[in-house]
Amino acid sequence: MTNLLTSTSPPEFLTRFYSALPPSDGRRPRVTLTFAQSLDSKIAGQGGQQLILSGKESMIMTHWMRTMHDAIMVGIARHLPPREPDASNGHDNPYHLPRPIILDTNLRLKTDCKLVQNFKNGCGRRPWVVCAAPSSPDDAVFASKMKLLTDVGVRVIQVPTETGHQIDIRAMLRTLSELGVRSLMVEGGASVIKSFFTGVSNPSGNFVDAVIVTVAPVFVGQQGIGYDLNLQSSSGLQHVHSEILGKDAVLMLRSDGS
Amino acid sequence: MTNLLTSTSPPEFLTRFYSALPPSDGRRPRVTLTFAQSLDSKIAGQGGQQLILSGKESMIMTHWMRTMHDAIMVGIARHLPPREPDASNGHDNPYHLPRPIILDTNLRLKTDCKLVQNFKNGCGRRPWVVCAAPSSPDDAVFASKMKLLTDVGVRVIQVPTETGHQIDIRAMLRTLSELGVRSLMVEGGASVIKSFFTGVSNPSGNFVDAVIVTVAPVFVGQQGIGYDLNLQSSSGLQHVHSEILGKDAVLMLRSDGS
Repeated sequence: MTNLLTSTSPPEFLTRFYSALPPSDGRRPRVTLTFAQSLDSKIAGQGGQQLILSGKESMIMTHWMRTMHDAIMVGIARHLPPREPDASNGHDNPYHLPRPIILDTNLRLKTDCKLVQNFKNGCGRRPWVVCAAPSSPDDAVFASKMKLLTDVGVRVIQVPTETGHQIDIRAMLRTLSELGVRSLMVEGGASVIKSFFTGVSNPSGNFVDAVIVTVAPVFVGQQGIGYDLNLQSSSGLQHVHSEILGKDAVLMLRSDGS
Repeated sequence: MTNLLTSTSPPEFLTRFYSALPPSDGRRPRVTLTFAQSLDSKIAGQGGQQLILSGKESMIMTHWMRTMHDAIMVGIARHLPPREPDASNGHDNPYHLPRPIILDTNLRLKTDCKLVQNFKNGCGRRPWVVCAAPSSPDDAVFASKMKLLTDVGVRVIQVPTETGHQIDIRAMLRTLSELGVRSLMVEGGASVIKSFFTGVSNPSGNFVDAVIVTVAPVFVGQQGIGYDLNLQSSSGLQHVHSEILGKDAVLMLRSDGS
């Protein structure tokens, strides 16, 4: 295969994978869940601490994958990478920078976080924050948090919640689609992954089109954070391709129904 | 790579892996833990039900791995394959059949199980059963269970227990070494894997030399049986090789200390 470390275009298995996936149906973005995990399926360390699990090659693959999406989404607990490599590595890159979206139910994002600061410094696209719509339109605490973020350039998107004050993922995807997002790459952490996975085996309608997992050859142990899934007997995903990148294995699945 | 489906010798990455591992030190066998898991690190289904996770290629790899070991060990909860493929596929195979050993703390093995029946029918080597030594030499229940198994040809090996009536793995390995076992392939299930893993990051002495994991591109969900590990910060294992076999990824690690 091409050398990922020096290539100036996405690896062929990625472009092949995405050419075979149907585009967005216009009602929701095409959704890819992607994350790196240990062999014992941990995606973070004790207390949610970030772990560097992927090797260099898989990280570069992930960067290329980002350039192939309109937007990337992470939970508030997980840090976004400060810069996309294609904005800094000097490659003449035909792909756009994805929009960063933070899933932040309770609007906890700080205005001095790296993502906001980078945007203020002219680096990267305007961040969007998806949060739960307040139960009352007169919620003063919410209004003040929202103003702080809006003042530094963040776009705050309010979506309905489900029982348990969880963001309604379906409603969120509909909204993102209306805002022009046709492809969304969901990068974690554990709780975001779990929220999206609930759709995979849901007979009332799946909202995940692809799952791309990087497995690093390490064991983290039970103090790490996993993503135990509440799945039906069939997970609704079929295998498409597996690839070794450096020490890691990348396993690519797509929805049965897509 | 060679076509695993038609090859008459073990895959090169396996022979290379084992040539680089030091042989048994004479005090315990060289131990390989190996198992197939889903992406969400489940190795059995609900209630311990056996799952067919590996594809054809990884199964053949596992069969070849068996021929490279003196003995294979499984827990009482897990069924052994009825026959080794090299005893039936007509290949002119220079490797021996491994000795089947069942880790069966409470001597629950039934005399009408397939493994015992196969041996009675002249197929396969004499099974060994490792069990906890009874607390009293006059334990009549134990003596009668042992007689039943011995009568059908099973060799019963009693080893000391640790707190919680767990087999003392270290003592067991010493005994197996005295009985001539220089290489042991431990195939599961979950509780056996966990017992052996406790040694991996144990500063008072590791007893696992290699871990070979087949990751199948499926999610089982939280009703499956996993192997949550109680590991120290460093797991004591280092990556050696990764390989795609069919749809599966095979990740090979060895002990830091071996």
